[in-house]
Amino acid sequence: MADKTNMQLLDGKTTADAIRRELAEAVKLRKKEGKKIPHLAAIIVGYDGGSITYVSAKVKACNQIGFESTLIQYDESVSEEVLMNKIKTLNEDKSIDGFIVQLPLPQHIDELKVTLAIDPAKDVDGFHPVNLGKMVLNLPGFLPATPAGILELLKRNNIDTQGKNCVVVGRSNIVGTPLSILLGRNSDPGNCTVTLAHSKTNNLKEICRNADILISAVGKPEFITGDMVKEGAVVIDVGTTRVTDASRQRGWKLRGDVKFDEVSEKCSFITPVPGGVGPMTIASLMINTLKALELRGK
Amino acid sequence: MADKTNMQLLDGKTTADAIRRELAEAVKLRKKEGKKIPHLAAIIVGYDGGSITYVSAKVKACNQIGFESTLIQYDESVSEEVLMNKIKTLNEDKSIDGFIVQLPLPQHIDELKVTLAIDPAKDVDGFHPVNLGKMVLNLPGFLPATPAGILELLKRNNIDTQGKNCVVVGRSNIVGTPLSILLGRNSDPGNCTVTLAHSKTNNLKEICRNADILISAVGKPEFITGDMVKEGAVVIDVGTTRVTDASRQRGWKLRGDVKFDEVSEKCSFITPVPGGVGPMTIASLMINTLKALELRGK
Repeated sequence: MADKTNMQLLDGKTTADAIRRELAEAVKLRKKEGKKIPHLAAIIVGYDGGSITYVSAKVKACNQIGFESTLIQYDESVSEEVLMNKIKTLNEDKSIDGFIVQLPLPQHIDELKVTLAIDPAKDVDGFHPVNLGKMVLNLPGFLPATPAGILELLKRNNIDTQGKNCVVVGRSNIVGTPLSILLGRNSDPGNCTVTLAHSKTNNLKEICRNADILISAVGKPEFITGDMVKEGAVVIDVGTTRVTDASRQRGWKLRGDVKFDEVSEKCSFITPVPGGVGPMTIASLMINTLKALELRGK
Repeated sequence: MADKTNMQLLDGKTTADAIRRELAEAVKLRKKEGKKIPHLAAIIVGYDGGSITYVSAKVKACNQIGFESTLIQYDESVSEEVLMNKIKTLNEDKSIDGFIVQLPLPQHIDELKVTLAIDPAKDVDGFHPVNLGKMVLNLPGFLPATPAGILELLKRNNIDTQGKNCVVVGRSNIVGTPLSILLGRNSDPGNCTVTLAHSKTNNLKEICRNADILISAVGKPEFITGDMVKEGAVVIDVGTTRVTDASRQRGWKLRGDVKFDEVSEKCSFITPVPGGVGPMTIASLMINTLKALELRGK
């Protein structure tokens, strides 16, 4: 048995705080040098509680580090045309360095069309095909925020990835698939032997038990149980499902994909939910916004 | 022991011939309907034997199926500027539906710059980041020719991929990495649980032995030995290394990555070299050239 006291929390909040302090310093330096201050815009459509929470956390992070921010909120009845026109305006607006359109969008709006309309040079969420293609080729561009945040978390906590067996569970376009590509690239963090598992995977337990680094991005609470984890593994939990919790005033709590009590007894490192991957995603978005300026030589 | 007689050759030549016949029919139909005939252009720089062989095989395939083709050959001393100007001309030339620049290029020419200069709508090799990004997102675009040829070979030989463990060895930008993404997507062929192995992989033999489908794209003759292959596996050999062979007039022969004699005794299907993946790559390029017209609604 592994000694439980050996398990270490991969504290995304603390790591993200450190990044925010660095970014705040960078902003101060830019001000001193008379350079442009990074400016992030966010579009939100409708009043979904989760989306509002995420977007307001992004605006808050901007404020904390001294970035400028603009929040554009539309009613859920907004037409696709109005939204597309706003994207065009933001693409052309030189004061805006990067912007995001918070997903999901209402059914009458084509998410793909919206994603493709964003200027890749301002696509700080890293969802545009050009940025994904650049990621595959290891060229400069924007990495999707959650996968990039996980890489940063591993790096800043000195977790060696070279030659490790890594299993990513879940193949979404914004987390699982890009993360599997990033961790397999010839880079640091990277150079893992990555297996991408998904809903069609037959022998999931066996595959997960081979992982030195196990990452779950499925969105099902308690999906990863103790018997799926190798002793000493590094476990990253990307899940953030809201489950009802009558004991809390707001009526819900966030749950990850990982059955924490069981898994934390076996692994060497584990991210908590909340306070693990979530804060790192926001930190990545801030890094990308500064990068948007730098890539344009500003 | 598997019965050796159960092993079947995955005959790329026969499969590619069938595709060529279908494309020839499509050309006849287009002619009858007064539609444009697909036109592929190929640029080759220098006189490397391998490159000349590949490019001439592509031109020959065009001729056989009734596509128009243009071969542009430069001396290896050609300047990057001249090459870039030619790419610009081909991008703008409405008679050209797709074109390729045969790699490798001489050292004084920036391959990445060349790749990025090709209009993604004419990038029938599928190397441009936009096309790779579309591939990741499962959007219409050009798939890289070799990976697409392997998918086609699996499909046309009724090899079930759903839920299979697939190991891809080698993570090049043009074969291993895109192939790993394609086989893991939610599509058919696809839905494999893919592991991408590479030079930094520690336990390669063990990983390969778990593969229901084993694909090697390393470029090292006899790299995959019998002890690395599970009984009944499907084995795809992407390697094409020229090794000296004094018994042949030309002085060399092509060798794959797979130690054929040992591996063929264990597996259910195996591609020969030559006559396996190579002909399928060329067939894919032809499919992409026709697709270039169709995607533009022509």
